[in-house]
Amino acid sequence: MEQPAAGRESFHAVEWRDGGLRLLDQRRLPQREEYLTMNTAPEVARAIHGMVVRGAPAIGIAAAYAVVLAARTAYQGAGDNWRDAIEADLTRLAASRPTAVNLRWAITRMRGRFDAINGSPEAALLAEAQAIHDEDRAANLKMGKLGADWLPPKATVLTHCNAGALATGGYGTALGVIRAAHARGSLKAVYVDETRPWLQGARLTAWELSRDGMAVTVLADAAAAHLMATHGVDCVIVGADRIAANGDTANKIGTYMLALSARAHGVKFMVVAPSSTFDLTVLSGRDIPVEVRDAAEVLSHAGMPVAAAGAGAWNPVFDVTPAALIDVIVTEKGLIERPDAARVAQVIQG
Amino acid sequence: MEQPAAGRESFHAVEWRDGGLRLLDQRRLPQREEYLTMNTAPEVARAIHGMVVRGAPAIGIAAAYAVVLAARTAYQGAGDNWRDAIEADLTRLAASRPTAVNLRWAITRMRGRFDAINGSPEAALLAEAQAIHDEDRAANLKMGKLGADWLPPKATVLTHCNAGALATGGYGTALGVIRAAHARGSLKAVYVDETRPWLQGARLTAWELSRDGMAVTVLADAAAAHLMATHGVDCVIVGADRIAANGDTANKIGTYMLALSARAHGVKFMVVAPSSTFDLTVLSGRDIPVEVRDAAEVLSHAGMPVAAAGAGAWNPVFDVTPAALIDVIVTEKGLIERPDAARVAQVIQG
Repeated sequence: MEQPAAGRESFHAVEWRDGGLRLLDQRRLPQREEYLTMNTAPEVARAIHGMVVRGAPAIGIAAAYAVVLAARTAYQGAGDNWRDAIEADLTRLAASRPTAVNLRWAITRMRGRFDAINGSPEAALLAEAQAIHDEDRAANLKMGKLGADWLPPKATVLTHCNAGALATGGYGTALGVIRAAHARGSLKAVYVDETRPWLQGARLTAWELSRDGMAVTVLADAAAAHLMATHGVDCVIVGADRIAANGDTANKIGTYMLALSARAHGVKFMVVAPSSTFDLTVLSGRDIPVEVRDAAEVLSHAGMPVAAAGAGAWNPVFDVTPAALIDVIVTEKGLIERPDAARVAQVIQG
Repeated sequence: MEQPAAGRESFHAVEWRDGGLRLLDQRRLPQREEYLTMNTAPEVARAIHGMVVRGAPAIGIAAAYAVVLAARTAYQGAGDNWRDAIEADLTRLAASRPTAVNLRWAITRMRGRFDAINGSPEAALLAEAQAIHDEDRAANLKMGKLGADWLPPKATVLTHCNAGALATGGYGTALGVIRAAHARGSLKAVYVDETRPWLQGARLTAWELSRDGMAVTVLADAAAAHLMATHGVDCVIVGADRIAANGDTANKIGTYMLALSARAHGVKFMVVAPSSTFDLTVLSGRDIPVEVRDAAEVLSHAGMPVAAAGAGAWNPVFDVTPAALIDVIVTEKGLIERPDAARVAQVIQG
């Protein structure tokens, strides 16, 4: 399959089209490429909670467009009082997933436009949502370059979950770095954790990278340390859902265990995330809320039970990797090597 | 459900019945409790390779009974030349799984009876196979007591894969310790890694322990480090497929990553295995062959593809945990704390 020019994929995870928000239904991939169109904010909140769209930056972008839909509904119902009428929808949107800070960040940024609007808010808010979307894609292209510069030549890399075009405004964070390195001919091998329980690695990352013509090898999450011990991995590359002021990073469950394994094997550990993923109001990872989802996601697969009847399950979907285990955080504002509070502040606020 | 008296389960993973070998088909659990009866050694070799029966001790016991079947066939075909006629079957049996040393150990022990036999070999070999079976169960009961003595009171434990009655002659190795501690009222909580790709934890361990009336909580393998960081795990308890002379331990893929995580959190790491699992001809874990199975086991589930078309997979089903990460190996001959070559030799050969 041909590689998209300038990081343009042949699909859009999140797209404003014909006055509505069109989402690629990621629950159905890779078996089916189906799109759902939404015209109200509550529909989008349900889609975010239900993981039609996932990935911190993509959730943020979808929420920004949902604010446009909410404003349209509010203006139709309440006219110039739309700023009051919109609140219930915004509260519901903000609560749809607890960990990814991009969700709140995008809503806050959209709110920042409210005061200056006269009359119908839709056009001004749509412009802002599209700016958020475009800036995210541009940030990913920038981070892809910075991250690929940091990697050793002919690197063997391992990624977890999906931090690709499906999880962002396009191109991807972790997968942006992998795409950029691949485009330079600078990758030796790409391994992908399958990422239980949702299998975002096997289902989504393998799908994205295969469409780019890259060879990917999927492995069970628990095989990662054995891979490092036997196959010479150079770098683990992951995205992030929220990064605290000190560099502690919440990301898909399993990321912390990967980071521990990487450190034990001298494998570098890279986090790739735009500045919108930083939450400087949270001092350390201890204060990042970690979403725990329904036990059924672990106990069944594709609607069929896999576990014995009577067994319970614990299904935390994120964990926190301490900054001390991270070699570099790649942001669109620059690299944060050996992250700590001072270095994070210097790059993100500087 | 009532707890079986004296470690007697309500099922038999491996059982000699009516002149044949009856195996509980572990591929079908927990949905269906189906038994397959085998009357020839090649059938058993296929069942071992196909994971109808799995777990190092259970594989060894099944192989011992398969030697009885092979001898019957050889004696029927070749009379007193059965010792030559049996060789092809024994070679095939020994090759059915490469990592679990109990398989070769059981065949070697059965061979040790060949010379003294006059006439039909079936009765003498069946007595030896049943002795292997009975000794394994007795070893498990002994290890259960020793391991439970070693645990702190009211322990929270985490196990991986299935090292229970399904994986042994009965009662279990790792699960024997958990059963014994539970019987004393000395467990606070039992967590079970689901154990991809075969889900032995979710399917088999949860089934076994639930039948004993124990509450179990299943988690994704990659959530184990987050569990340790947030839930106060006292001890990881696992079985083994082969233990080298220096204490390095091959066990289900993911065990090594668990051991790295346990060490990082000050969580104790216990291996439970009978002396038949030790291979003193192998000096360290580097020389233990690790089976790599079909990529399809990772790329599909219950016959349905889960991964994107075009993706490859790497499916090592064991890994090696260095002795330095193990706090104690529990054997029926005694405990090996902080295992190394000298301490292993002292207990196993002493």
